[in-house]
Amino acid sequence: MEEWDEVEVPNNVKDIFVEMKNTAELMVDLAYSAALFREKEIAEEVLELEEYLDILNYNLMVRAVLAARNIREAEQITSILQMARSIDDISNAAADLAKMVIEEKLHRLITEVIMESEETIGRVMVSPDSYLVGKSLEELDIPTNTGVWVVAIRRGKRWIFDPDEDMKLMPGDIIIGRGTRTALDYLKEIARGIIKVMPNG
Amino acid sequence: MEEWDEVEVPNNVKDIFVEMKNTAELMVDLAYSAALFREKEIAEEVLELEEYLDILNYNLMVRAVLAARNIREAEQITSILQMARSIDDISNAAADLAKMVIEEKLHRLITEVIMESEETIGRVMVSPDSYLVGKSLEELDIPTNTGVWVVAIRRGKRWIFDPDEDMKLMPGDIIIGRGTRTALDYLKEIARGIIKVMPNG
Repeated sequence: MEEWDEVEVPNNVKDIFVEMKNTAELMVDLAYSAALFREKEIAEEVLELEEYLDILNYNLMVRAVLAARNIREAEQITSILQMARSIDDISNAAADLAKMVIEEKLHRLITEVIMESEETIGRVMVSPDSYLVGKSLEELDIPTNTGVWVVAIRRGKRWIFDPDEDMKLMPGDIIIGRGTRTALDYLKEIARGIIKVMPNG
Repeated sequence: MEEWDEVEVPNNVKDIFVEMKNTAELMVDLAYSAALFREKEIAEEVLELEEYLDILNYNLMVRAVLAARNIREAEQITSILQMARSIDDISNAAADLAKMVIEEKLHRLITEVIMESEETIGRVMVSPDSYLVGKSLEELDIPTNTGVWVVAIRRGKRWIFDPDEDMKLMPGDIIIGRGTRTALDYLKEIARGIIKVMPNG
């Protein structure tokens, strides 16, 4: 837990709330990635994010409760607390899945279900002659240009979760992404250097 | 409930499970859409999907429990039941949000949070001179080509939720989509006829 003692929590209710929603969604993507590739390191990250989310949730609740000045406001603020609880439920579901990955208790069916969903998870390796090499995630805008949401990147032995927009891709990087099979295949062709341009590149 | 009496449930555990995951994810997208646009019809659809998901969940549990023949199998099948419960939790969270939309108990902050998340929801109107007109969702492959996941389409007074791939877009159609702000803006330019081609069109 100590590592979160110094953690910076956004200052206002809205920013905490946005951070909670983004974090829970990242946790779900990472949990599915961990399950699909049996990657315990990714599963561990999900559990760390769960602790971070608990801190955000606590801070949100304190601020939200303080803000109510009359019955009508209190009712509406209840909707904030309820949605925060829903986000927390979603993050707990992700953490449960991550724990099953760590304990090696996953039925192979779970992997198949993740692979056959409308939106799935894929792993894409960046080849030296790909258009992606040397460009930042901001320049590339992979979500708009390929339909793939970048969940994490593996560089050598290191995982980069929820990478910053100024991160530049390098040959050998492994992108974990979420999208349809077609979108993931399309990104693969760009990453392999088979497709030489990006739509808006 | 009657309308689900005749509902077809897929025949094997995997297909039921995939259908559950897809349905829960659709419910979340629809719940956020309902909250953002204060659309009670969309919220009602979320509640109907929740009933459908309960039926799927029951069928999955019966089949999964039947499949266990020894302790090791029973342990692994427990992971299926646990993930099914997680999916059910996520669908309940979506239903809670939908209920708040119907009861008009949403704090405006919830709308702001949905709008400012990394992935958000947008509404895009198809203009008569857009490239999209007359083409099927399959041909267009909007997710790969623009990064926008199509959640629902409004045609006249009718909502089409989770539209089929062979559906052709018409002028005046309103697409509800999920994606980054950049991706949604890009689709808007195509829908308005400002951008005349699709990347892979």
